[in-house]
Amino acid sequence: MSAKSLRRNFIRNSMLFITGLFSFHAGSQKANAAEEKQDNHSDDTETVNDTIKTINSLRTIHGNFTEQDIPDSKIQLILKSCVRAANASNMQTYSVIVVKDRDVMQKVSQYRGSCMLLFCVDYNRLITCAESLGHSYYTDKMTSFITGSTNTILAAQTAVIAARSLGIDCLLTNGIHRGDMKRVWETLELPEDNCYPLIALVMGYPTEEPPYKKGRLDGIGIFHNEKYHPLMKSDIEEIVSKVDNKQAHISLNNDWDKKGYKHYYDWLFTSWIGENGRKPAENETQQFKLLKRSNFVDLQNL
Amino acid sequence: MSAKSLRRNFIRNSMLFITGLFSFHAGSQKANAAEEKQDNHSDDTETVNDTIKTINSLRTIHGNFTEQDIPDSKIQLILKSCVRAANASNMQTYSVIVVKDRDVMQKVSQYRGSCMLLFCVDYNRLITCAESLGHSYYTDKMTSFITGSTNTILAAQTAVIAARSLGIDCLLTNGIHRGDMKRVWETLELPEDNCYPLIALVMGYPTEEPPYKKGRLDGIGIFHNEKYHPLMKSDIEEIVSKVDNKQAHISLNNDWDKKGYKHYYDWLFTSWIGENGRKPAENETQQFKLLKRSNFVDLQNL
Repeated sequence: MSAKSLRRNFIRNSMLFITGLFSFHAGSQKANAAEEKQDNHSDDTETVNDTIKTINSLRTIHGNFTEQDIPDSKIQLILKSCVRAANASNMQTYSVIVVKDRDVMQKVSQYRGSCMLLFCVDYNRLITCAESLGHSYYTDKMTSFITGSTNTILAAQTAVIAARSLGIDCLLTNGIHRGDMKRVWETLELPEDNCYPLIALVMGYPTEEPPYKKGRLDGIGIFHNEKYHPLMKSDIEEIVSKVDNKQAHISLNNDWDKKGYKHYYDWLFTSWIGENGRKPAENETQQFKLLKRSNFVDLQNL
Repeated sequence: MSAKSLRRNFIRNSMLFITGLFSFHAGSQKANAAEEKQDNHSDDTETVNDTIKTINSLRTIHGNFTEQDIPDSKIQLILKSCVRAANASNMQTYSVIVVKDRDVMQKVSQYRGSCMLLFCVDYNRLITCAESLGHSYYTDKMTSFITGSTNTILAAQTAVIAARSLGIDCLLTNGIHRGDMKRVWETLELPEDNCYPLIALVMGYPTEEPPYKKGRLDGIGIFHNEKYHPLMKSDIEEIVSKVDNKQAHISLNNDWDKKGYKHYYDWLFTSWIGENGRKPAENETQQFKLLKRSNFVDLQNL
């Protein structure tokens, strides 16, 4: 087979694969059930089970939580669940600060809920235990930061899903590291060394149900068949069109066209990115300063 | 109240809280059920539901997967599920490479399963779409790397939990960034710029059930009440003793004492860390070189 036809085959296979991904809809459970019957896997799990339903019902509540408290038993169940996430060498390189004080919650995350879980990369427990036994333990700086943050976020998402299954919603503030991080350290008395706050889950019960389910891209450009699949012109058009489709609810707002933009991405890449005042050089400096202070960057070895 | 008694109160409250966390066991569902009845939250979710059960059943299969394929319908369901994870500004700054070729899987992750999902931080889709509409979009370097890796791992863990609910187990290789990363880039034709492979989920059906459930630390040193709680001497002793308890199955092996070590941590911090040849300076340099090549580090601005 020539290189050209191999390439053509690859593209065709990729397209079939992607089409397959797109063709799955909640409404096609019947077709999937039929397909399941042909599977040689003998377990009797239904294709869509309660866990998948819980995951499908995940949504972000933007701060409009009621004053209702979450029962302690549920908070404990969420905490017990989150540590079940896999983690490198079972070293659990994280700490979770459980905050019920709503003023503290607001100070750290800018939101008020019933309970906040702040997930931090944290190597201090290991370092302290090692030292108590007469050993030394150092992190691998940025490499350990990546291992540690991966462990931390795996646990955080497990908490999110456990909470949702208990009727508790979350706001995930994937922006702790973009805000006034020093305030977070001071407010929660985090150690300066070997600890880095990554994400806060503000949990609670929403004052009202969100009006619609947020959409996601779930085909070309997100999933790649066997190898990375760079976007072709038609792929780009498809993605731009998909995020423009208001019924899909992928956009952050629904009135970008009323503001004079032709495409949602026109608004996103000018107004939204602009509004958030992205200043790469400044942010970079703060991030590195803090990563360095926390002992996760060793500039001397670069 | 004096500062001293405030501090004493804080410690006592922390202890009560931590004791509360420790006192929760699967066997105490009855007590929890009674507590639930007193809750003023009116939903009728049972304390332990199928999602919590799925999470509690998470385990890592270390490469001993059967040759059985995972039905495409299930892979698609896992992919469709994983994008439901929250992500900053709904920008989904990740790509997932779906690999069924077992040789490729082994080359990338060193393991063979039925299907591998490689989760990468990826800003290329956004950059390409922005450019196609005449805009520029740049990442915030390390700050974007942290935002992006958080989005990526939230999606990855959602895939893990969805898979488990379908009877599919995972091996999570939180070590892609510690291995021969260039091989990963080359094998999967990942873009050099603005893309960083973070974690591979090798999925499949295990050849045999693991003999026991892995344990976790889930109290002092992991969870902190309201503020960070530095470890006291008694806390350290408790943790060392907990990981020494073979019935808890927190350790990576069960014969550290036969090898002449008094505590599990004696083995971990000498033999294990040593065996893995941790060389901070070298690793740091590789990590920064790759992060820099990928455009996530701008050393000029430091």
